[in-house]
Amino acid sequence: MQSSLLLRDIVIGMSDGLTVPFALAAGLSGVVDNSNIIVVAGIAEIAAGSIAMGLGGYLAGKTEQDHYKSELKRELEEVEKVPEREKQEVREFFEQIGLSKEIQERATEEIATDKRRWVNFMMKYELGLDEPDAKRATKSALNIGISYIAGGIIPLLPYIIIHTSTEALKVSIAATLVCLFVFGYFKSKLTGVHPFWGAVKVMSIGALAAGAAFGVASLF
Amino acid sequence: MQSSLLLRDIVIGMSDGLTVPFALAAGLSGVVDNSNIIVVAGIAEIAAGSIAMGLGGYLAGKTEQDHYKSELKRELEEVEKVPEREKQEVREFFEQIGLSKEIQERATEEIATDKRRWVNFMMKYELGLDEPDAKRATKSALNIGISYIAGGIIPLLPYIIIHTSTEALKVSIAATLVCLFVFGYFKSKLTGVHPFWGAVKVMSIGALAAGAAFGVASLF
Repeated sequence: MQSSLLLRDIVIGMSDGLTVPFALAAGLSGVVDNSNIIVVAGIAEIAAGSIAMGLGGYLAGKTEQDHYKSELKRELEEVEKVPEREKQEVREFFEQIGLSKEIQERATEEIATDKRRWVNFMMKYELGLDEPDAKRATKSALNIGISYIAGGIIPLLPYIIIHTSTEALKVSIAATLVCLFVFGYFKSKLTGVHPFWGAVKVMSIGALAAGAAFGVASLF
Repeated sequence: MQSSLLLRDIVIGMSDGLTVPFALAAGLSGVVDNSNIIVVAGIAEIAAGSIAMGLGGYLAGKTEQDHYKSELKRELEEVEKVPEREKQEVREFFEQIGLSKEIQERATEEIATDKRRWVNFMMKYELGLDEPDAKRATKSALNIGISYIAGGIIPLLPYIIIHTSTEALKVSIAATLVCLFVFGYFKSKLTGVHPFWGAVKVMSIGALAAGAAFGVASLF
C-alpha cells in the first residue's frame, strides 16, 4: 500500500515532468537559435511546475485530512444527538445493498451497539471516506515535486550540452520519447493497462504536446 | 454531481494554468528584456501544459473505465465458477463491519440470491469501485485543457501589451495574484476549507513558484 502510493506520486510527477518541459523546449527551438535561453526557460518551468504540483498535492492532502476530521466530528455528534436518524441511515445502506427488512433491522441494531464502530461504518460506507494518513501530505508533495524535476531534466540535458537549438532538439526528442515509452510501459503495468499500447499512448501525448507547442510558438 | 465534476475539472486545470505560465514568465523576466520571447515561451507552455493535463486526464479516465470493465468481468465469472469463495468474501465484509455470525450468514445468503446484485455489491464494497461514466473521460479532458488555457492567458496578457519585460512583470504579478486569490477563495468554498485562508494558501503557492522560477532562472 505504502509503495503503491509512492509509485502513484512518481507517476503523477514524472508524466508531467517529462512532457511539459520537453514540449516547451521543443516549442522554443522553433523560434530561438540559442540553446541558453531554452535551458533557462526549461529550468524556470521545472522550478515552477515542481512547486505548483508538489505544493498542490500537499494542499490537496491537507484538505482531505481536514475534511475527514470535520466529518468525523459531525458523525460523532450526530450519533449522540440524533441516534434514530443515524440508525435510519445505516438501515438505508442495508436496504440499498438488497437485504430484507428483518436483516436490515437486526444488522442495524448490531452496528449501533458500539458507537466507535458505528461512526467508522458511517464514515466509510455512508460518506465513502477512508482515514487519510497524516504524514502522507508532506511525503506526497516531496515525491511529486522530485519526480517532476527528475522527469524534466531529461529533455533539457541535450540543450545544456549542444548549443544549436535545432541540433539539441533532435537529441531531446529521441531521448524523451524513449523515456516516455519506458515510463509509459511501467505505468501501464501498474495500472493494469496493456503495457505496449499504454506506452505508445503516453509517448503520443508527449509528442502531441511538443508538436502543438512547436506549432503555436512558430506562429508568433 | 455533474456540476461538481465540472467544477473539479476547472479547479484542476485552472490552478496549474494560473500558476505555471505565471511563474515561467516571471522567471524569464529576470533574464530577458524583450517581452516577445516571454510571450512565445508562455504560449508554448500553455499549449504543452493544456495538452499534457487534458490528455492526461483523458487517459486516466479511460484507464479507470477499462479497469472497471475487466474487474466486472472477473467478478461475473467468479460468481459462476467459485460461488462459495465469493460468498466467503461477502461474509468477511459483514464480519469486518462488526455483525454477528448469524447475521453475517443470513445477509450473505440474501445478497447471493440475485447474481447481478451480488456482483454489484462485490464491485462496490469489496473492490471499492464505482461505475465510471463513459462520456466523462472526453468531457474531463476538454474541461481541464480549456481551464488551463483560460488560467494561463491571464499572466501572459501584460507581456503581450507591454514590451519591457520588467514592466510587464509588475502588472502580471498584480493581476495573477488577484486572480489566484479569487480562484482560491471559490475553490476553498467548494472543498469546505476556510475561504480566506484557503485563498491565501493558493496565492502563496503561485507566488512561491514564481519566486523560485525567477531565482533559479537568474542564477543561469
